[in-house]
Amino acid sequence: MFFVKRFSLAAIPFAASIGFAAALEAERADPSATLNGALLLLAGLFMMLMVAGFSMKQAGVVREKSAAAISLRSLAAYALAALAFWLLGYNLLFGVEPGGFLGVFQLWSPRAADPALDRASAGEDWLFQMGCAALTAMIVAGALGERVRLWSFLIFAVLLAGVIYPIEASWSWGGGYLAANWSFGDLAGASVVHSAGGWAALAGALVIGTRPMRHEERQARQSTGGNLPLASLGALVLWFAWFGYLGGAQVAAGGTYDPFSLGKIFVNATIAAAASVFTAMVFTQVVYKKIDLPMILSAAIGGLVSISAEPLAPAIWQAAVIGAFGGVIVTVAASVLERTRIEDVGGVIPAHLGCGVWATLIVPWSSHHAHWPGQIIGILMIGAFSFVMSLFIWVLLKYTIGIRVSAERDYLGLDRAELGLDPESSYDD
Amino acid sequence: MFFVKRFSLAAIPFAASIGFAAALEAERADPSATLNGALLLLAGLFMMLMVAGFSMKQAGVVREKSAAAISLRSLAAYALAALAFWLLGYNLLFGVEPGGFLGVFQLWSPRAADPALDRASAGEDWLFQMGCAALTAMIVAGALGERVRLWSFLIFAVLLAGVIYPIEASWSWGGGYLAANWSFGDLAGASVVHSAGGWAALAGALVIGTRPMRHEERQARQSTGGNLPLASLGALVLWFAWFGYLGGAQVAAGGTYDPFSLGKIFVNATIAAAASVFTAMVFTQVVYKKIDLPMILSAAIGGLVSISAEPLAPAIWQAAVIGAFGGVIVTVAASVLERTRIEDVGGVIPAHLGCGVWATLIVPWSSHHAHWPGQIIGILMIGAFSFVMSLFIWVLLKYTIGIRVSAERDYLGLDRAELGLDPESSYDD
Amino acid sequence: MFFVKRFSLAAIPFAASIGFAAALEAERADPSATLNGALLLLAGLFMMLMVAGFSMKQAGVVREKSAAAISLRSLAAYALAALAFWLLGYNLLFGVEPGGFLGVFQLWSPRAADPALDRASAGEDWLFQMGCAALTAMIVAGALGERVRLWSFLIFAVLLAGVIYPIEASWSWGGGYLAANWSFGDLAGASVVHSAGGWAALAGALVIGTRPMRHEERQARQSTGGNLPLASLGALVLWFAWFGYLGGAQVAAGGTYDPFSLGKIFVNATIAAAASVFTAMVFTQVVYKKIDLPMILSAAIGGLVSISAEPLAPAIWQAAVIGAFGGVIVTVAASVLERTRIEDVGGVIPAHLGCGVWATLIVPWSSHHAHWPGQIIGILMIGAFSFVMSLFIWVLLKYTIGIRVSAERDYLGLDRAELGLDPESSYDD
Repeated sequence: MFFVKRFSLAAIPFAASIGFAAALEAERADPSATLNGALLLLAGLFMMLMVAGFSMKQAGVVREKSAAAISLRSLAAYALAALAFWLLGYNLLFGVEPGGFLGVFQLWSPRAADPALDRASAGEDWLFQMGCAALTAMIVAGALGERVRLWSFLIFAVLLAGVIYPIEASWSWGGGYLAANWSFGDLAGASVVHSAGGWAALAGALVIGTRPMRHEERQARQSTGGNLPLASLGALVLWFAWFGYLGGAQVAAGGTYDPFSLGKIFVNATIAAAASVFTAMVFTQVVYKKIDLPMILSAAIGGLVSISAEPLAPAIWQAAVIGAFGGVIVTVAASVLERTRIEDVGGVIPAHLGCGVWATLIVPWSSHHAHWPGQIIGILMIGAFSFVMSLFIWVLLKYTIGIRVSAERDYLGLDRAELGLDPESSYDD
Repeated sequence: MFFVKRFSLAAIPFAASIGFAAALEAERADPSATLNGALLLLAGLFMMLMVAGFSMKQAGVVREKSAAAISLRSLAAYALAALAFWLLGYNLLFGVEPGGFLGVFQLWSPRAADPALDRASAGEDWLFQMGCAALTAMIVAGALGERVRLWSFLIFAVLLAGVIYPIEASWSWGGGYLAANWSFGDLAGASVVHSAGGWAALAGALVIGTRPMRHEERQARQSTGGNLPLASLGALVLWFAWFGYLGGAQVAAGGTYDPFSLGKIFVNATIAAAASVFTAMVFTQVVYKKIDLPMILSAAIGGLVSISAEPLAPAIWQAAVIGAFGGVIVTVAASVLERTRIEDVGGVIPAHLGCGVWATLIVPWSSHHAHWPGQIIGILMIGAFSFVMSLFIWVLLKYTIGIRVSAERDYLGLDRAELGLDPESSYDD
Repeated sequence: MFFVKRFSLAAIPFAASIGFAAALEAERADPSATLNGALLLLAGLFMMLMVAGFSMKQAGVVREKSAAAISLRSLAAYALAALAFWLLGYNLLFGVEPGGFLGVFQLWSPRAADPALDRASAGEDWLFQMGCAALTAMIVAGALGERVRLWSFLIFAVLLAGVIYPIEASWSWGGGYLAANWSFGDLAGASVVHSAGGWAALAGALVIGTRPMRHEERQARQSTGGNLPLASLGALVLWFAWFGYLGGAQVAAGGTYDPFSLGKIFVNATIAAAASVFTAMVFTQVVYKKIDLPMILSAAIGGLVSISAEPLAPAIWQAAVIGAFGGVIVTVAASVLERTRIEDVGGVIPAHLGCGVWATLIVPWSSHHAHWPGQIIGILMIGAFSFVMSLFIWVLLKYTIGIRVSAERDYLGLDRAELGLDPESSYDD
C-alpha cells in the first residue's frame, strides 16, 4: 500500500517553498491553530454554498419563463467575483495602511504571507473573503431580478466585488479609517457586506426604473408565486450556510475560547432567525389574513442579517429581540417599498439593507467594544460610498451599453431571450 | 492588517464571563477536546440541513397545489421548535435527576455550565439537541401532509418539541429512569427521536381521520407522483445530513478513539441504507413489476433509522442485515397501512416508527451494553408516553380550534387556501 | 446528567478490539492526526453529497417525463456501489502488490488495519474511496440518460465500481504498476476517476447507439431545456462538494503543512472553475449569440476536473490557464460529439473524459514529481483498460438482457415506463 506515497507527492515542497516556516513552527506548538485553519476553510466552502442558496431563492420568485436565466446569474457572479477578487480585490481590502482609506492595486498571491494570519493560511482566508465579496453581487442580482441585462449585471458585479466592496471593507476589516478611529464593530459584515450590497441594489433599482405594469405584475407574481418550494429550499440552504459564514468571521480569533464562542454565536443566530420568522408569520397572518411565504423567507434571511454585526455578545433574549425586530423591518419595509416606485423583486433590500443597518446600529446594546457614534459614522460612510459609487456605475452602464431588458425580451422571458430556450417547443409529439 | 484585532473583539470577555475556566484549562491540556466541540457543532449544522431535506421530501410528494404551503411547515416547525427548546425543552431534558422522570421547567442559558459537557460547549450541545427535538415535529409534518391546518400543526409542534419529546428523552439521554435502571441503549435516538415522532404522527393521523376519497386520492397521487426529483433530492440531503446526526451523537465520547468510531459508524450507516434501498428496489420490482420511487426514498431513510440505535457495534455484515430488514419493514408496513384507515402521506410512519422500533430492539444483537428486557421496556415506555400525550393534545386541538383542513380548502389546495396564491392567474398574458 | 455515560457506551470496547493500539498511541502523541481523520471523514460525506449533485444535474437536462426515473439512478448507483465496494472493490484497489496489476478478491473489513493509514481510520478511508468508485458510475448515468434500462445500468454500475475501477485505480492509488514505475501523478483522480468514468460512458454510448430522431430530439431538448434551475443547482452542489473531494485526496498527507496546502488547493480549484465558466460564457455568447446554460454547467464541472490531477502545485495563474482551456475543451468537444453519431445527454464526456485527459497531461507543467512519458502511459493504460472492459460488458449486456429502452417506452417516458407514474392523471378534478 502506498497511501502515504500517493498523497504526499506535492504537499511538502510547496509549503516549504512559500516561506511559512515561522508559522509552521508556531502551528506545531499549538495544534488548535490547525483547527482554526480548518474551520476557516469550511467557512469558505459554506460561502460557496450560498451561491446555490441565492440561485434557488431568486429563481423561485421570478416568472417561470426567466427562472433558468436567473439561475445562471449567481453562478456567473461567483465565477467573475473570484477572478476579480484575485486580480484586484484582496489587496485593495487588506493592503490598506492602518487608518487608511485605500489599499493597493496588486494581484493577490498566497506567497505574500500576512503575519496577522499566523493562525490560518492565506489561501483559506482568500476563499472566505472572496465569498463575502461575491455575496454583495448576489444581493444585487436578487433585487434586480429579470429586469437587468446579463452582461451589464456581470460588469457591475465585477466592479462591485473587485473594487467598491474591497475599498469600503478595508476601512473596517482591513484595519483602515473606521477600525483605527471609531472602533467600528461589524463582526460578520452586516454593514460591510449586506448593507453595502443592499445600497448597490437600491442604486440599481433606482437607475433601472420600474415597468409601467409593475404594480399589476407584482400583484400577479405574488399570486402565482413562481416556484416557491425551490425558493424555500434556497432560504433554508442560506440559513445553513450562514452558520459557516458566521463561523468564518469568528474562528480566526483562535485559541481555546473558540468552541464556546462558536456555540454561542450559532445559538444566537438560530434564535434570531427563529424570532424573525415567527414575528413575520404572525404579522402577515394578522394583517393580511394569510401567510406571505416569500416574505417569511426574506424574514429568515433578515433575522440572520440582524445578528451578523455582533452575533457573540448578545444574551439569547437579546438575540431574540434583535431578530424579532428584524422580522418587523422586513415586513414593514416591504410595504413601504411597495408604495414607492422602487421595484425589488426578491425582497432583498429590506432584508439585507434594512436589517444590515439595524444590526450595525444595535451592536453597542450588547457589546462594550463598540459605541453609538462609531456605528453611525460607519453606517453612513459605508452606505454613502457604496450607494454613490454604484449609482455612478449604473448610470455609466445605462448610457453606454444599456442595463434594462427591452420590453420585447421582457415579454418573451429571459430563458428565451438570453438562453435561446423555447419552453413551448416539444419534441415528444 | 488588523485581522486579529478585528476578530478578537468579543470572544475573550464573553468566554471568561461565563465561568468555563475549568473547562478551558482542561481543554488547553487536551486539544482533541477542541475537535470534539467542532464536530458537535458541525453535527448541529447538519441537523439544520435536515430541515431542507424534510421540506423537499414532503413538498415533493403532496399535490402540486399544496407544495409551497408544505415547504413552509418544516421551516416554521424548526423556528418554533428552537424557541420552545430554548424556553422549555432543554432543561426538561437535561435537568432531570438521575433515575428520574421529569426535568425542570427552566429557561436554558449557556451560563448553566454542565460539568458533564467538559468536552464541548453548552451552545454546541444545545444546537444539536434542539435539532433532534425539531426532527420529531418534522416527522409529524411528513405524515399529516396537507390534511392538517398550519397553526394547529405549529401548536402541536411546539408542545412536541418543547415538552413531550424532552420528557421522554430525559429518561434515557438525560440520565433518567431508563438509563439508570435498564441500561437502555439508543445512541442516536431511533426510539427517542424517530419512534417518538412516529407515534405522535400516528396519533395525529388517527385523530384527523381519513378523507372519503382517500383511497382514490392515494392511487392518483401515486400515479402523478408530485415532484419526485425534488423528493429524491430531499431524501439524498437527509442521507447526507444523517452522517452529521450520527456523528453528533457519537462525537461527545471524546478522546483518541473517535476517528475510528466515527469511521465505523459512517460505514455501517452507508451499508445499512444501501442494503435497505437494494431490498426495497428488488421487492417493489418483483411484487409490483415497477420501482416505487417514493417507497425507495422512504427505504433509504428507513435503513438509516434502523442503524441509528446502535451504529457503532454491529459488524458490517450485521449492518447490512439490519438495514435490509429495515427495507422490508418499510415496504410491508406501507402495504399494511394502505389496508387500514390510517393515511400517511409521506410514508414516514413505516420509516420512522417501524424502523425505529426495529433498530432499538436489535441493539443487543451486536452490543453487550444493552439487553432485551431493557430495550423492550424502553420501546414501550417511550411509545406509550409519546402516543398518549400526542393523542390527548390532538383531541384537545380538534375540539377547540380544529385540526382538519376543510373539504373546500382541501380542494383548493393549501397554496391557495393558506398562502393566498393563485397558480392559475398569469400576469404575462 | 449522564452525557458521558450515554455516549461512551460502545466506543471504547470496539476501538480496543480492532487492534489499533499502536495507531492510537501515535495519535495521542500527534493531535493533528485526529484532524486529518476528521477531514477525510468530511470528504467522504461530501462524496455522498455529489450523489445529490449528479441526481439534480441529470434530472434537469432530460425530458420532464423521465426526470423522476433519472433521479433514482444516482441514488441506486450509490447504494449498489457501496455494496460492491465493500464486497469486492476495496481490496482489489488497495490489496495490490507494489508495482502489481491486480489486488485481491477479499471482503473489506475495518479489522484489516493498514499500517499506511496511521493517520486516518480504515472506515474513514473506505467511505471516501467508495465515493470515488460510485462517482464513475454516476458519470455513466449522466451520459446515457434515459436511453439505458435501469437494471442493465445498475449491473454495469456494480461491475464498474466494484471491479473495473478498482483494478485500474490500483495501478496508481494502490501503489501498483504506474505508481511504482512511472511516478504517475493524479492526485484527485482526473484520470483514475473522471476519465475512467468517461471512457465507460463512451463505450456505453457507442454500444447503445443513437436514436433515429436523435438530432431533432437534441435540438428540441436544447430548446426546451428541461428543468434548468434544478440542473444549475446540481452543478453548484457538485462544485461545493468538489472542495471536499479535493480535500479528501490531499488531507491524508497529514501533518502541519495541511492547512497551507488545503488553502492553495481550494483557491486553485475556485480559479480554475471560474476561468472555465468565463471562457465558456464568452465562447457561447460570441459563437452562438446566446448563453448555452447546460454547456456553462458542464464547463464548471470541466474546470474542476481540469485541476483535479494536480490541484496543489500550479501557481494561481497556471490554474486559471488550465481551467480556461478546460472550458474550451468542453465547448469544442461538445460540438465535435454533436457531429458524430455519439449521443451524450448530459454533456459529461467532454467534461469528465476530455478534461480528465487534459488535467493528467498538464501535471508536469507545474509539478516536478510527474513527467510527460509517465502521464501519457498512465492516460493510455487507464483509458484502454476502462474502455475495452466497459465495451465488453456493454456488449455482453446488450446480447443478453438488453440495454436499450424500447422505442415505445422511450416515447412514454421513463417515469411512466419504469416507475408506473401517470403524470397526466389528476385526482383533483
